[in-house]
Amino acid sequence: MSDYPSIVLEQAVNQMASLPGVGRKTALRLVLHLLRQPEQDVQAFAGAFTRLKQEVVYCRECHNISDNELCPICASSRRDHHTICVVENVQDVMSIENTGQYNGVYHVLGGIISPMDGVGPKDIEIDSLIERISKGGVDEIILALPTTMEGDTTNFYIYRRLQNAGLDIKISQIARGVAIGNELEYTDEITLGRSIVNRTEFKA
Amino acid sequence: MSDYPSIVLEQAVNQMASLPGVGRKTALRLVLHLLRQPEQDVQAFAGAFTRLKQEVVYCRECHNISDNELCPICASSRRDHHTICVVENVQDVMSIENTGQYNGVYHVLGGIISPMDGVGPKDIEIDSLIERISKGGVDEIILALPTTMEGDTTNFYIYRRLQNAGLDIKISQIARGVAIGNELEYTDEITLGRSIVNRTEFKA
Repeated sequence: MSDYPSIVLEQAVNQMASLPGVGRKTALRLVLHLLRQPEQDVQAFAGAFTRLKQEVVYCRECHNISDNELCPICASSRRDHHTICVVENVQDVMSIENTGQYNGVYHVLGGIISPMDGVGPKDIEIDSLIERISKGGVDEIILALPTTMEGDTTNFYIYRRLQNAGLDIKISQIARGVAIGNELEYTDEITLGRSIVNRTEFKA
Repeated sequence: MSDYPSIVLEQAVNQMASLPGVGRKTALRLVLHLLRQPEQDVQAFAGAFTRLKQEVVYCRECHNISDNELCPICASSRRDHHTICVVENVQDVMSIENTGQYNGVYHVLGGIISPMDGVGPKDIEIDSLIERISKGGVDEIILALPTTMEGDTTNFYIYRRLQNAGLDIKISQIARGVAIGNELEYTDEITLGRSIVNRTEFKA
């Protein structure tokens, strides 16, 4: 006999536990929570994911998630379309938007180059980035990828591709250094070392 | 403009974040994971919860979750139907089943008496328990409720109801004491004190 008193329950738990980071005990707790909700609410819950998969598209310019062919940022005339911020994923767009410090547009790679995970340049939106810049009208790209080996590799690859294509635009990357509010004592050596080498002029 | 680049995405995140213990960042991560799965898998995911709510019933005997009128435990002729283990919820049935130490049947209260949470005796399956015992054929009930104030209150309430109904059956409760593998030093005083008062005969 199965551990579960009901096959339908077990199937729902299996589905919930298929989500990353959700174990079987948590899955059971969440499924039993759903079971206690009115049928209408459970249908709204289930329907949201079916609709998500059926209706969500990717912006044809920046490859961000969107309801339309162009995402709200690419479609906005208030944004600076001469500056493109290159990010790994949708969450990064949202994080940068939340800072309120950026008014340009984005390019969502959908991943970064990672030979360990079998992700090569052709698996992410690099060709479309080069093509987008080739069309002209772009003054600067800001590389805002993770400050990891994979992020650095991807940054360098994009830099070489732009050079090879003879596209002479400004390429910048997000500042790296000691996080605001951090004690030097608890900052790792590599970050602290680089923050001294790459020190910036003090502005009072 | 919303924080989310897509309304459909936002609705899916809202639904995911409605689950207990799931914050908005986690919800977004889970929804984006679903979005990367094949449409078929997302439909299987959504369908499992709709089916759950439509098809799951409660066992007419023990009120455990079930696919049929009688749950697999109540329907089994291999179980001892003279002993009823009274538990708070479905998870507790599964936990006790996993020990492999119990061969009787269950009664799932669906909660415990908790005036703080507005749960009274009429809100949980106590009447049906008394009725089930009144029919005869039950020799013993094992109270396996949480070892909390609410659990103790519920235990006492059930005891009184059985007395008032003149039902003279054996009533036992799960053993309380120092958990197996625990150091006395780290056991709380109440548990340790009671484990001395309620000491049991040593069997070599």
